[in-house]
Amino acid sequence: MSTQPKFAVIGGGSWATAIVKMLTMNVDQVSWYMRSVYALEHLKLHKHNPNYLSSVEFDTKKLNLTNDINEAIKNADFVIFAIPSAFLSAELEKMTESLEGKIIFSAIKGIVPETSMIVGEHFHKNYNIPYDNIGVITGPCHAEEVALERLSYLTIASGNLGNAKIMAKNLSSYYIKTKTSDDIIGTEYAAVLKNIYSIAAGIAHGLGYGDNFQAVLMSNAIREMKRFIKQVHKMKRNINNSAYLGDLLVTGYSVFSRNRMFGNMIGKGYTVKSAQMEMSMVAEGYYAAKSAYKLNQEYKAKTPILDAVHQVLYEGKEAKEAFRKLTDKLD
Amino acid sequence: MSTQPKFAVIGGGSWATAIVKMLTMNVDQVSWYMRSVYALEHLKLHKHNPNYLSSVEFDTKKLNLTNDINEAIKNADFVIFAIPSAFLSAELEKMTESLEGKIIFSAIKGIVPETSMIVGEHFHKNYNIPYDNIGVITGPCHAEEVALERLSYLTIASGNLGNAKIMAKNLSSYYIKTKTSDDIIGTEYAAVLKNIYSIAAGIAHGLGYGDNFQAVLMSNAIREMKRFIKQVHKMKRNINNSAYLGDLLVTGYSVFSRNRMFGNMIGKGYTVKSAQMEMSMVAEGYYAAKSAYKLNQEYKAKTPILDAVHQVLYEGKEAKEAFRKLTDKLD
Repeated sequence: MSTQPKFAVIGGGSWATAIVKMLTMNVDQVSWYMRSVYALEHLKLHKHNPNYLSSVEFDTKKLNLTNDINEAIKNADFVIFAIPSAFLSAELEKMTESLEGKIIFSAIKGIVPETSMIVGEHFHKNYNIPYDNIGVITGPCHAEEVALERLSYLTIASGNLGNAKIMAKNLSSYYIKTKTSDDIIGTEYAAVLKNIYSIAAGIAHGLGYGDNFQAVLMSNAIREMKRFIKQVHKMKRNINNSAYLGDLLVTGYSVFSRNRMFGNMIGKGYTVKSAQMEMSMVAEGYYAAKSAYKLNQEYKAKTPILDAVHQVLYEGKEAKEAFRKLTDKLD
Repeated sequence: MSTQPKFAVIGGGSWATAIVKMLTMNVDQVSWYMRSVYALEHLKLHKHNPNYLSSVEFDTKKLNLTNDINEAIKNADFVIFAIPSAFLSAELEKMTESLEGKIIFSAIKGIVPETSMIVGEHFHKNYNIPYDNIGVITGPCHAEEVALERLSYLTIASGNLGNAKIMAKNLSSYYIKTKTSDDIIGTEYAAVLKNIYSIAAGIAHGLGYGDNFQAVLMSNAIREMKRFIKQVHKMKRNINNSAYLGDLLVTGYSVFSRNRMFGNMIGKGYTVKSAQMEMSMVAEGYYAAKSAYKLNQEYKAKTPILDAVHQVLYEGKEAKEAFRKLTDKLD
């Protein structure tokens, strides 16, 4: 690896765009892959992503823009995946370049639907990447506030703290503070679960529950998250650190969260199908609820909120009735 | 004590009004003391409190309305204090009736400025009330949502669980769920500290910090609250229960919280004095910050958020600079 490591970012959405912005504060060259040729051409010509965070102007001399995933990966030391988990498998199928020796970071916050694995696990088991070469970039962080350069804190987790530190250093700037963690499994599950709890918050809001209930819901959600993650990967962690509780709060209290919006529509009476059709963006929590529920059949953590969301999304239960029953299980 | 215990509520504000509403769902007679003769007369005539939660209609046959605190207390088994902590001493000075044998519940959520004590401690030390006869009613609960009969959860703490259970039973209804706790000190400190953290959230918002920072601030606040309360009264407690974390969130995320509003004005550049003059309601956190900071000189918990708020409110530090330094201490 040269003195300045080479970074590739995979994805054209808002979070990928925010990550490229953060990196270009520190490094001279970032390879950036996205599917959309239109967006790439627009970026080259007008210096901003036409679809996401379009207020961010890029110094295009620093960008190697490509719609060939192999070209992006080829020369990279660090490859950051920032695409919806539902699209990951399809992108990886296009890949002919080897990932051997490369450091893979996930900024995905979802479960891979085809394997019901979190992204790190997916790369470890299906691509033979050792956990030392895998990492997670997690918030609490709305991409929109990165665009506005509002102070945000990231947690960078990896099996190898050296890799986490390199990534942290290259994402840091006057508006981004970073910390590192070795809880690669727990931070990624937290990022996955929080989307499910955000759907729950949206459903509750749509059903007419108020701020008092929302506070009780979030207080129960963090306890549920702790129980779930402890079953999956027991280690010493403070669930109230920003990567867990902070990430839950920024999503669960955001009226802009697509997961919360999706839940809100269901609470207001939309069917799951019609709510999905109304939304142009993917609600990660929809897939996460299915996978996390399935996983928990094995782990058997007490997860009343996850169970209620699963009932509404996948078992055809009325949201009103499922949440009425849920309220008796919270305290 | 007769089969149905007799309740007195001391206070005419929104939280006192909400508590009377909750009690009248269950009991036939509530003594209700407030200073304002105008409000009392209005209540008798028009069945609602003209100043707070005016949408709530009371069955006045159930109310013994009085502006004589001794008359309210005289026949009561349970006396619930729900007035700003800054006014408590003045009200207690009017009291000639003995509190001996009565069960005292605090719904105050503040520190008594004259003694720097939480309310339970104040009654214990200055009125010789044994801790068995003292209790706390705590949220997360905006009074406004009680008025709307939106589902809310209360925690009732007491040194004597039997007393907590009686109070819990008489506050419960189809829109109020209750649980009991023996952490009378911790729940009351949590209710006090959350107002300080709510001021911090307001200051940050006023200064232009966004939702990402707010999530980090709340995640640090709950850890700070845990450290502080542990120093004050060490016992086994889950800081993520609704009475601690839930109560922090409902206040820290509420745009209607007077503490958050007060902080917001200061963040936007108002002086402390002018912010106080603009607000017609008391921001409990203003007094709490002084007392908690003073107490912590002895306890020595690590409290960067409390310290920053104290600097801004009492040490003449610029909010912008105090919070810039605070951001380096959070993670």
